[in-house]
Amino acid sequence: MHAYRTHTCADLKKENVGDTVRLSGWVHRIRDHGGILFIDLRDHYGITQVLCDPDSPAFADVEKVRSEWCIRIDGTVKARDESLVNPKLPTGEIEVFVRDLEVLGAAKELPLMVFGDQEYPEETRLRYRYLDLRREEMQRSMTLRSDVVASMRRRMWDKGFREYQTPIITASSPEGARDFLVPSRLHPGKFYALPQAPQQFKQLIMVSGYDKYFQIAPCFRDEDPRADRSPTDFYQLDLEMSFVTQQDVFDTVSPVIAGVFEEFGGGASVDDPASWPQIPYKEAALKYGTDKPDLRNPIEMQDVSEHFRGSGFAIFAKLLEQDGTEIRAIPAPTGGSKRFCDRMNVFAQKEGLPGMGYIYWRDKADVLRQELGELLQQKVKAERKQDLGRVESLAIRIEELGAEIDRLEAEASSTGKRPIEAAGPPTKVGPERTEAIRQQLGLGVGDAAFFLGGKAASFQRVAGKARDVIGEELGLTEKNRFAFAWIVDFPIYEKDEETGAIDFEHNPFSMPQGGMEALEGDPLAVKGFQYDLACNGYELVSGAIRNHKPDVMLKAFELAGYGEDEVKKRFAGLYTAFQYGAPPHGGCAAGIDRIVMLLAGTSNIREVIMFPMNQRAEDLMMQAPSEPTSDQLMELSLRVIPQE
Amino acid sequence: MHAYRTHTCADLKKENVGDTVRLSGWVHRIRDHGGILFIDLRDHYGITQVLCDPDSPAFADVEKVRSEWCIRIDGTVKARDESLVNPKLPTGEIEVFVRDLEVLGAAKELPLMVFGDQEYPEETRLRYRYLDLRREEMQRSMTLRSDVVASMRRRMWDKGFREYQTPIITASSPEGARDFLVPSRLHPGKFYALPQAPQQFKQLIMVSGYDKYFQIAPCFRDEDPRADRSPTDFYQLDLEMSFVTQQDVFDTVSPVIAGVFEEFGGGASVDDPASWPQIPYKEAALKYGTDKPDLRNPIEMQDVSEHFRGSGFAIFAKLLEQDGTEIRAIPAPTGGSKRFCDRMNVFAQKEGLPGMGYIYWRDKADVLRQELGELLQQKVKAERKQDLGRVESLAIRIEELGAEIDRLEAEASSTGKRPIEAAGPPTKVGPERTEAIRQQLGLGVGDAAFFLGGKAASFQRVAGKARDVIGEELGLTEKNRFAFAWIVDFPIYEKDEETGAIDFEHNPFSMPQGGMEALEGDPLAVKGFQYDLACNGYELVSGAIRNHKPDVMLKAFELAGYGEDEVKKRFAGLYTAFQYGAPPHGGCAAGIDRIVMLLAGTSNIREVIMFPMNQRAEDLMMQAPSEPTSDQLMELSLRVIPQE
Repeated sequence: MHAYRTHTCADLKKENVGDTVRLSGWVHRIRDHGGILFIDLRDHYGITQVLCDPDSPAFADVEKVRSEWCIRIDGTVKARDESLVNPKLPTGEIEVFVRDLEVLGAAKELPLMVFGDQEYPEETRLRYRYLDLRREEMQRSMTLRSDVVASMRRRMWDKGFREYQTPIITASSPEGARDFLVPSRLHPGKFYALPQAPQQFKQLIMVSGYDKYFQIAPCFRDEDPRADRSPTDFYQLDLEMSFVTQQDVFDTVSPVIAGVFEEFGGGASVDDPASWPQIPYKEAALKYGTDKPDLRNPIEMQDVSEHFRGSGFAIFAKLLEQDGTEIRAIPAPTGGSKRFCDRMNVFAQKEGLPGMGYIYWRDKADVLRQELGELLQQKVKAERKQDLGRVESLAIRIEELGAEIDRLEAEASSTGKRPIEAAGPPTKVGPERTEAIRQQLGLGVGDAAFFLGGKAASFQRVAGKARDVIGEELGLTEKNRFAFAWIVDFPIYEKDEETGAIDFEHNPFSMPQGGMEALEGDPLAVKGFQYDLACNGYELVSGAIRNHKPDVMLKAFELAGYGEDEVKKRFAGLYTAFQYGAPPHGGCAAGIDRIVMLLAGTSNIREVIMFPMNQRAEDLMMQAPSEPTSDQLMELSLRVIPQE
Repeated sequence: MHAYRTHTCADLKKENVGDTVRLSGWVHRIRDHGGILFIDLRDHYGITQVLCDPDSPAFADVEKVRSEWCIRIDGTVKARDESLVNPKLPTGEIEVFVRDLEVLGAAKELPLMVFGDQEYPEETRLRYRYLDLRREEMQRSMTLRSDVVASMRRRMWDKGFREYQTPIITASSPEGARDFLVPSRLHPGKFYALPQAPQQFKQLIMVSGYDKYFQIAPCFRDEDPRADRSPTDFYQLDLEMSFVTQQDVFDTVSPVIAGVFEEFGGGASVDDPASWPQIPYKEAALKYGTDKPDLRNPIEMQDVSEHFRGSGFAIFAKLLEQDGTEIRAIPAPTGGSKRFCDRMNVFAQKEGLPGMGYIYWRDKADVLRQELGELLQQKVKAERKQDLGRVESLAIRIEELGAEIDRLEAEASSTGKRPIEAAGPPTKVGPERTEAIRQQLGLGVGDAAFFLGGKAASFQRVAGKARDVIGEELGLTEKNRFAFAWIVDFPIYEKDEETGAIDFEHNPFSMPQGGMEALEGDPLAVKGFQYDLACNGYELVSGAIRNHKPDVMLKAFELAGYGEDEVKKRFAGLYTAFQYGAPPHGGCAAGIDRIVMLLAGTSNIREVIMFPMNQRAEDLMMQAPSEPTSDQLMELSLRVIPQE
């Protein structure tokens, strides 16, 4: 018999009844049912119920064990009574009567229970991560992560890609974040850097002629704390291809991502990658207020400036007199109640805007009927008070209203259209413009629209958020679906609003659409062959066709204010390599932590990393970072500057 | 038509004749044959011959291209003349007549030719790694490495292992080497360390109940320069399993390693993993002089001390009077000539020993016949000089010799054994002892044996090397074979010869055989469940069943002079984790760089790493390490101590 187990804790079935078996695992739960001890014995694969009574020679030993002790038992497989069969458990038809027990590893009193759903402070969970990781949900998340990464590898291999490892101790590869530095012992005063991404190396691999590269690559960034990212490192599925256009990259990556979501998405529908829309950056900003739209939400914003220009709605009319301003509408189908509109307005105020104007559309006959109802009540009150004058005037008004309602209903049944009425401050533009707005937005009775004005930059973020909230609250955003879109045509440059300086919008490696010629015009008009993949409101993938031409590269840097010396200094390897026959190439990187978070349904990155840092970038379990010895500092020729 | 290619440079066959195609790649070689230009166009997949003559509209463009320019051509596929078909090339039946050419990336004058076998200094190769990597041999090594790693992953998955990533920015994990440190910006004066191995994390993963872990893991060690290792990092196939014995680990790993060598060994024979010997450490040291023996070499050393004790061979007899000394023999079948024996003796002297004694065995009749030949020549000379006295005495001696030879031959044919004679200094032990040595070593006519004496530690390394050289020079070492052996029963402790202090021989994580009880006896007698896999003279794998019991761990450390505080400080996470129900577990790590080196047939590690450091731990291409900015140092609260 094997020293530790003949079966795992998920193996035993009815067929094993009568067998003598050996199991090893952890004491998940112990119960004492009238002198009979029941233990749920747990391993990575499952749970088997084992039991013991005073007839067993092991009874005294079994009495001593406690939760999370690691034990080995020998025993006999028995069928459970029909009534005690647990259909939820693969081993639910049997139990094992214990005849021998060995304690493999005892446990002190637990700072964190593995059994049950009790919540613990994150610091406790991280300090005792090995206990936390035993919990069912963590086991599921960790195996999910492992399986997702394995699936990505298989899919990349199937597409003819090979994985090549790039250096981890290397030179700074500026991607806009802060480097982690590693002091060199052999070269005092000099430092290596951990790569922010393998960007330059993967491009060098293309220059080296390897055609198709991928890597599950660790990326290191010395980030300030934020809940949804690791303060030290993250993993990406990094890939690069030679002799390709943007569409080739999409055709390669889309099925990989779609495949992973189909495989691990728990049955949620996954949009067919052949029909993933390609949305220009500008259009995404306009329609969704973000470059990572959630397309499960059908709401698309529209520019409605024309309806407000010179109109009676003074705030917007005035705004539009300034350069670069616009009025953006967020249609909200089924949102047509004052209560909902007011709530959204408050939301916008909380997000730091003065508010959102709104119009909601109602059935005019319904509105009149409501008014009629109120008048009828007033009339009853007036009659009670015997205020005859008031009774009479109300009666007249009631009659008029009734006639008006009849007229509207007659008109409705003759035209086939319900009579409509708009409410809300922006209706001050007048009924015709109000109606034009409604028609442009394709709204009707029961719907609403929200309006934001000013420079797009001032309201766009909130507009995007409002779109999310509206979609969510009105139940418009589909559940159980992964909706994807490629966002394309990103601008290469952006202008610093304060200094007016032009700098790279993203990274300096993208090929400008139109090449050298485009760079000779307005920099802010230059679009790049640069793209993101958005899914359910998250950016999952980011990439570009690269600028592989040294002269175009120099020009691109020049526009951002960098001279040739700077280029050579910051990107020495790559810039020189491009002088020696560089192929056109492009690729992208997919965020693995993010993908696993989406699949696991969590927004806390630490739920999908085995041994994460806390938000202060500390590992409490391993006690990192820690103070070096003075010998270590000496060897590195370093001295720590005392803090004041 | 695709922007860059309709086919790769390995695709086109006779079936494509007449097709209009588009290819992209690098100009491997250009030849001008009487006004017709031939280009070998190369990509990652192969080479296609393209040609152009003045009839083509592209001729002027083709004339301009140079080696390693990256180009795109359009053209027509033509069949080659029967006589010009190149059967070595997959595309050897066709060529492509160029009608259009686009330069995708021009190249400056090359510091390193891709075509041809010219050798370049390593510094040049590393500085222009992207050119070096284009060379056929590098393409082969890099894809080999990638394929080996992919194969390992597939094999591990097939065995039910999952890959879990462990932290790279973490705490020091002392494995006996020097850590790379990473200063923490958020915690001034504190440092992270890059892991020397994921040892503690993989053990924590076992304590967390994940049962089977593996990882293609980067390991970081700040090493001093050495030719066959990277000065910064290396990769290992790291694995760990719970509820296993040593044999379970062997049964898991052996087929994975054997499978990889079968898949990529280029047809070399691979010993059946079921029959890989398990050799105790002590036996390996005795027989092979090393714990990583090359078993393709059949030579096994033996202890022959008894034959020399108190013998007439004074050097060895005297040596043996000292405590702890021995005489070791290296049998050298077919090495029985004075010339060979002298050469080996010189080898030992070059390795720093006083020399190796040797005996070689000859056919006595042959020896006499040789003597007879010499006498006959002397007799002829003497006759020529008319020195009659000498002629006569020679004639007598010749007659005697002839009779002796006849006697020996008669004896040989009656006994069926050739008469044997031993030569060499150690024969001073006398004929009986010499014969006993021969019999113990199983040697005969034409063989030799070498002898080394003293304390094993003083000669063992050279003995092991001599065994290699002898096996190699005598052609005893099999070619084209991968021979494996598990080396087991490593001692847990070793004694510092100078200080007499006891310390861990390897790492402190191994379970001592015999557990707590064994630790209560002589520490130097304690063997561990600790093992290596040797292949062709290299250590490929190293591992152990771990010490998962806190009390045994404390005791083990105590013997090596570490108190509980020290254990808690150095292995805080692991030691605490073991208090909470640790399972028995074990595993190993296989050196990937080493395995790929063996498969690629190189002894230079930089041939199997895409972007290696040079031996001064510099990346000349990326210019790492480099000086940080003063802002960076400030942010890290560090100051560099000026060098004197």
